[in-house]
Amino acid sequence: MSAAVAAQSAYTPGEQPQGGGWIKLNTNENPYPPSPLVVAAIQRELGGDGASLRLYPSPKSAPLRLAAARFHGTNVENVIVGNGSDDVLNLLARTFSDASRPVGMLDPSYSLYPVLSGLCAASVRRVPVSIEGDFDADAVAGCAANIFFLTNPNAPLGTAFSREKIESVLARFDGLLVVDEAYAPFANADTTGLLSEYPNLVITRTFSKAYALAGMRVGYALASAEVIAALDRVRDSYNLDRLAQVAGAAALEDTAYYERTIATIKATREATAAALQGRGWRVLPSQANFLMVSPPSERSISSAPAAAALFQFLKENKVLTRHFPQNPLTAPFLRVSIGNDAEMAVFLDIADKWVAAGGAAQLASVS
Amino acid sequence: MSAAVAAQSAYTPGEQPQGGGWIKLNTNENPYPPSPLVVAAIQRELGGDGASLRLYPSPKSAPLRLAAARFHGTNVENVIVGNGSDDVLNLLARTFSDASRPVGMLDPSYSLYPVLSGLCAASVRRVPVSIEGDFDADAVAGCAANIFFLTNPNAPLGTAFSREKIESVLARFDGLLVVDEAYAPFANADTTGLLSEYPNLVITRTFSKAYALAGMRVGYALASAEVIAALDRVRDSYNLDRLAQVAGAAALEDTAYYERTIATIKATREATAAALQGRGWRVLPSQANFLMVSPPSERSISSAPAAAALFQFLKENKVLTRHFPQNPLTAPFLRVSIGNDAEMAVFLDIADKWVAAGGAAQLASVS
Repeated sequence: MSAAVAAQSAYTPGEQPQGGGWIKLNTNENPYPPSPLVVAAIQRELGGDGASLRLYPSPKSAPLRLAAARFHGTNVENVIVGNGSDDVLNLLARTFSDASRPVGMLDPSYSLYPVLSGLCAASVRRVPVSIEGDFDADAVAGCAANIFFLTNPNAPLGTAFSREKIESVLARFDGLLVVDEAYAPFANADTTGLLSEYPNLVITRTFSKAYALAGMRVGYALASAEVIAALDRVRDSYNLDRLAQVAGAAALEDTAYYERTIATIKATREATAAALQGRGWRVLPSQANFLMVSPPSERSISSAPAAAALFQFLKENKVLTRHFPQNPLTAPFLRVSIGNDAEMAVFLDIADKWVAAGGAAQLASVS
Repeated sequence: MSAAVAAQSAYTPGEQPQGGGWIKLNTNENPYPPSPLVVAAIQRELGGDGASLRLYPSPKSAPLRLAAARFHGTNVENVIVGNGSDDVLNLLARTFSDASRPVGMLDPSYSLYPVLSGLCAASVRRVPVSIEGDFDADAVAGCAANIFFLTNPNAPLGTAFSREKIESVLARFDGLLVVDEAYAPFANADTTGLLSEYPNLVITRTFSKAYALAGMRVGYALASAEVIAALDRVRDSYNLDRLAQVAGAAALEDTAYYERTIATIKATREATAAALQGRGWRVLPSQANFLMVSPPSERSISSAPAAAALFQFLKENKVLTRHFPQNPLTAPFLRVSIGNDAEMAVFLDIADKWVAAGGAAQLASVS
């Protein structure tokens, strides 16, 4: 095994129980199915006997790249597609980091970045994000990273950074700035308009969240033609299968459908946030399809154990959420994906039961 | 860009024209559709509204790994699946090669190996294969590679090495021996029976050829639990989408269907070989789903230019084959995938026309 591989612990994805009966609010999946156009496109490609599956797909995912380029008003040579945006992030790490070229990232943010960097033997520079959702742009500029991953809206916090904030980083930072916009379709703004001005900007997008296609593994990056060409040298020749390619292209066509489901998810997010705040919970402002929530804790104990206990109680009641205990900033919170209204009602009901049964107060009396 | 990326030229896949009208005998695809069970499994997963696609797939492709383990009479911990076997080959290179640990390969063989090695900054040691399909096992043992890729049956030659030959390498070679069995279902034997005896043996398989699923990107490797666990640390968490996972598992169930189509392809291969030999062509013995063929060339010119001219003539007539001019061993040949009988009849007809119009003789008079 290579030293870099041996030294690197694997990324831990959220639980994906394959049986039924779970309310999955743990991996920010979309509660609604993908557009009917997506299903029709897959059916069309499949045909009656699946004959097209015997043939290799377009190696460069040409039609999907074209669809993404049109969607963002840019050119095919400014787009690369991946087997999920994780594939694109992996290509970015492999192409632009190594033992002598560190990787930077916000802390907290997506826990895959340090895993990918570690596999490239790159050291990791972390710039803290405050609970209010701010960070020091000078710290990014001064961290000497060759490539910096900036998740916007941030995951797991959910807070979005302004376009001005991103520009202030771009103007100061010498390396490549990757703005991971996995959650941007749920936010009030995105950074794609800055691409033509800043050659050191890369934007990554996924079909897993807003487009309800986590099961199809499709993502892409937008960047200068030079950056895209460099990534393309590392990319697997046939990294997207035929059905994934047509699914992604069809999703980008059905703007009306996705605007509707995204609006519904945002409304549910706001209603859930209001319901919890009304019950005295702390809820971070979110521009993503999840909320960071912390249960009421009057007796001033650290609420990290309370969050852990609530996580467990929810899981025992077949509601999966996510708890990130490693970071003191995130430890008092649970990250709760926005499901449909019925799912959120079940979540609220079980959370209420936990509070009614003593919740954090019970913990305090134990400790 | 990293030095390794900058230094590495990209892999060149065979042409994949997405329009119709071509007879594709260039990338060893299966001329027959996949099993009806595959189509049914994809339909079932897709359902009426594609709702399951909103959920992440099984991160470790659990049901597909189980199906592959059962198929080969081994255990789940001895199987890793990839987004095509190219993904698995990439994981092998990343895990077991770097600047201080060279990669070995037969020459000629799959031109992706040196690309993957180059991206890991690993040097490449080549052991020649003779036109008769033999190589020096001591040369493999002595090449000081940490990992050696041995394609069996060989591509592009088509010749298969005996089990005894593979064992003689395993017994002498200190590193990891990867037997790439992409074409093994078309051969008279395979090496899977040796896995329990040799912990340094890795076998890779693909669904792209025998299983008619090049468009779905599914492959796997069989190896010791230790090797599989090491590869799994580098693997992308969700490297196979939901439809690819169910497609692969369904294909492994329909043994009867695939035995039938493989038998048909082998019969067409033998008939095509006999037809060409009857016309005075040189045809290498093949245990794969392709033939290496060299047109008659009475005037003793090098037939490399003849092969190039024939390739071009076929292409002008919308028949795609593959020519590998870089290696003196392969330069006089075209690699022709086995299509259905009608496709092979068109190939023979156009080849006959080229010969009748002067063919290699015409070239000789020009040169």
